[in-house]
Amino acid sequence: MAIATTSVTAACQSAKRASRALAGAETASKDRALERLAELLGERSADVLEANAADLTDERAAGLTEALRDRLTLTEERIAAMAEGVRAIAALPDPVGEELDRRRLDNGLDLRKVRVPLGVVSVIYEARPNVTVDCAALTLKSGNAIVLRGSSYAERSNAALAALVREAAVEAELPEGAVELLAGDRSELEQLATAEGLVDLVIPRGGEGLKQALKAVATVPVMYAAAGNCHVYVHADADLEMARRIAFNAKVDRPGVCNAAETLLVNAEVAGAFLPGILADLTDAGVVLVGDGRAQAAAAGTDVGEADDADWDTEFLGMKMAVGVVDSLAEAIAHVNAHGTGHSEAIVTGSDDVAAEFTEDVDAAVVYVNASTRFTDGFVFGMGAEIGNSTQKLHARGPIGLRELTTTKYVVHGDGQVRG
Amino acid sequence: MAIATTSVTAACQSAKRASRALAGAETASKDRALERLAELLGERSADVLEANAADLTDERAAGLTEALRDRLTLTEERIAAMAEGVRAIAALPDPVGEELDRRRLDNGLDLRKVRVPLGVVSVIYEARPNVTVDCAALTLKSGNAIVLRGSSYAERSNAALAALVREAAVEAELPEGAVELLAGDRSELEQLATAEGLVDLVIPRGGEGLKQALKAVATVPVMYAAAGNCHVYVHADADLEMARRIAFNAKVDRPGVCNAAETLLVNAEVAGAFLPGILADLTDAGVVLVGDGRAQAAAAGTDVGEADDADWDTEFLGMKMAVGVVDSLAEAIAHVNAHGTGHSEAIVTGSDDVAAEFTEDVDAAVVYVNASTRFTDGFVFGMGAEIGNSTQKLHARGPIGLRELTTTKYVVHGDGQVRG
Repeated sequence: MAIATTSVTAACQSAKRASRALAGAETASKDRALERLAELLGERSADVLEANAADLTDERAAGLTEALRDRLTLTEERIAAMAEGVRAIAALPDPVGEELDRRRLDNGLDLRKVRVPLGVVSVIYEARPNVTVDCAALTLKSGNAIVLRGSSYAERSNAALAALVREAAVEAELPEGAVELLAGDRSELEQLATAEGLVDLVIPRGGEGLKQALKAVATVPVMYAAAGNCHVYVHADADLEMARRIAFNAKVDRPGVCNAAETLLVNAEVAGAFLPGILADLTDAGVVLVGDGRAQAAAAGTDVGEADDADWDTEFLGMKMAVGVVDSLAEAIAHVNAHGTGHSEAIVTGSDDVAAEFTEDVDAAVVYVNASTRFTDGFVFGMGAEIGNSTQKLHARGPIGLRELTTTKYVVHGDGQVRG
Repeated sequence: MAIATTSVTAACQSAKRASRALAGAETASKDRALERLAELLGERSADVLEANAADLTDERAAGLTEALRDRLTLTEERIAAMAEGVRAIAALPDPVGEELDRRRLDNGLDLRKVRVPLGVVSVIYEARPNVTVDCAALTLKSGNAIVLRGSSYAERSNAALAALVREAAVEAELPEGAVELLAGDRSELEQLATAEGLVDLVIPRGGEGLKQALKAVATVPVMYAAAGNCHVYVHADADLEMARRIAFNAKVDRPGVCNAAETLLVNAEVAGAFLPGILADLTDAGVVLVGDGRAQAAAAGTDVGEADDADWDTEFLGMKMAVGVVDSLAEAIAHVNAHGTGHSEAIVTGSDDVAAEFTEDVDAAVVYVNASTRFTDGFVFGMGAEIGNSTQKLHARGPIGLRELTTTKYVVHGDGQVRG
């Protein structure tokens, strides 16, 4: 194993040193490292699979649920998909050096605002080895060093993959410290979140527990890869066949992810016409339904349990959905703003005015008209890949891609200007 | 007095309600409110001056230093300058609705990324009544509600000014809650910094004590209006006359502000030729000098004390400067990155390559070539005004103007698209 467990401070210091060289690295060098990484993933897939098998047969892994075990498992196909993702990132434009503004001030100063890397980014993630490669590739391309803090369940898989990234970086004459890997010790979290001056941004990918743990201690900036309590609202003038497809897709296509819908809201005028069909579809697909009294009454024989207060605020992340009937667009918007997490919200309507009111008044990262919430994704949005999805309003809102991993610098040239 | 002391929660809730209406407000309404505010500042200046006189004669004010008393004092001229500032903000482009990206995705979805207001911004500030008007005007133009938390020393002045802003807002049919004012009770800080769901951003303007107090408790995002330990580095190939003007201006023009220089670094090759002149200039202007051994040796009779370790890390905010001699550009850059606060850094050099290395490798919000650090300012940068200066890397770096008070929203239109 090329990477030994290392202390948090040593890892962060190494990353910090590397970040200085990376900030000035040529696009060609970074792309060469990524192309080489994609090759290495192919050439060394047997090593990676061997490490992964050791993680999967470790006694620690015995307690994993089938779903978590599946996320931990690598295959030739999954490794090939990682390599393809890395090549896609190499093909994206380099955000570093992008000029966002340029002006000649009245006093003759030449002012430019340019994108520069953040410096050192730390990602804290669950037992999904592919995240190791996705995140390292995104930070490398954006000129940042990364301190990866993976799960101990994936220790050997992560180490094997991080070693390939480092090898590729060094072959492209980029610093080895571009990628540092921590092993998954619980005490590392607080150390990372308080590494002021060494870590510029922490991105936790994980549940509410991780988020709260970091909030309590973090002194470095944290960008939360967020929960999604997403809604589909069917207005009175909706094409009900379209609404049925969208509501079904938003819930069922991949219920375990943050852009899946958790609540279906229907205007009272069409509840009787719309609900029996969609509720039967959802039930047939295995979705457990809960609803308010009017939704239950309109269900026409489909089993809808009674929703309690907590249901409207819950990201089920599975085959369960809450169904509510509202009397107006305003009531729908108020419900979404009161219960949503500001991730992805959809309306189905035939009216441009209604759509405009919904998109303007709903306070969320992404607002859809006549489309499924499932599209919120850096790849779908043309950003190549994402390191997570942000529901906070500062710095980045929505998918976190290459540009979101940068900051800016004003570079001002003069010929002796002084003030006053 | 139109505005009574109000509870933090009630103020934040009122601002939150107002923020919804403000987010959709027409540019013309917002500009009309600002134009009316500028008029009211003229028409009611006597009321404002009366309130200010009451603050100045309050027994609390007896303990203020002359400098703090001056910042608290309003005059007809200062009120007219505020009005002029408000008109300048009215004349700026509205950032809300600005389209940052628009793409047709392969699946036919029409994706737009647009600027929207943050929501509710809270500014915590010292006893400077003009900040009340500056900040309220910036947030109003950017479609945000504001919760102002001023100093108790300026209680009556702030109340008089905030009442004018509210009157102007209401005349333009904007909600009164657009501007809420808290009185300056210490317990308000923690309440504001933990008002999750009500306050979207807190901007403290004040010293290190305030910053640390907020860091310890804040759960809502905080953007720190930052300290500036700024440097001027004079390279071996500099035009020494230019360097003398720049170094003098950066220190002396206005030593109490964050973009003033605190340390002068000089390349050893020109220390003997450069330092005697500039050090005499600085001493003549009343600057107390401390330096390393080589700076002391090159001072040629000017009194330079011995710098201790802390001097290199201190924002003097006054007539004191540290002077150091370095052997190379690399040493200068390393010194700046080790001791600077990432605010504003300047090099004086005749070489484009040297300039490029400095601007690339120095990690700061603004990097100057052959110009004074004093230019870092939202007004000078053409942003109209600023609510502070950020040295953090996330969201906003450098002057915080109208755009920096916004976030983004993806608005996606489809015709029934589903995923998978």
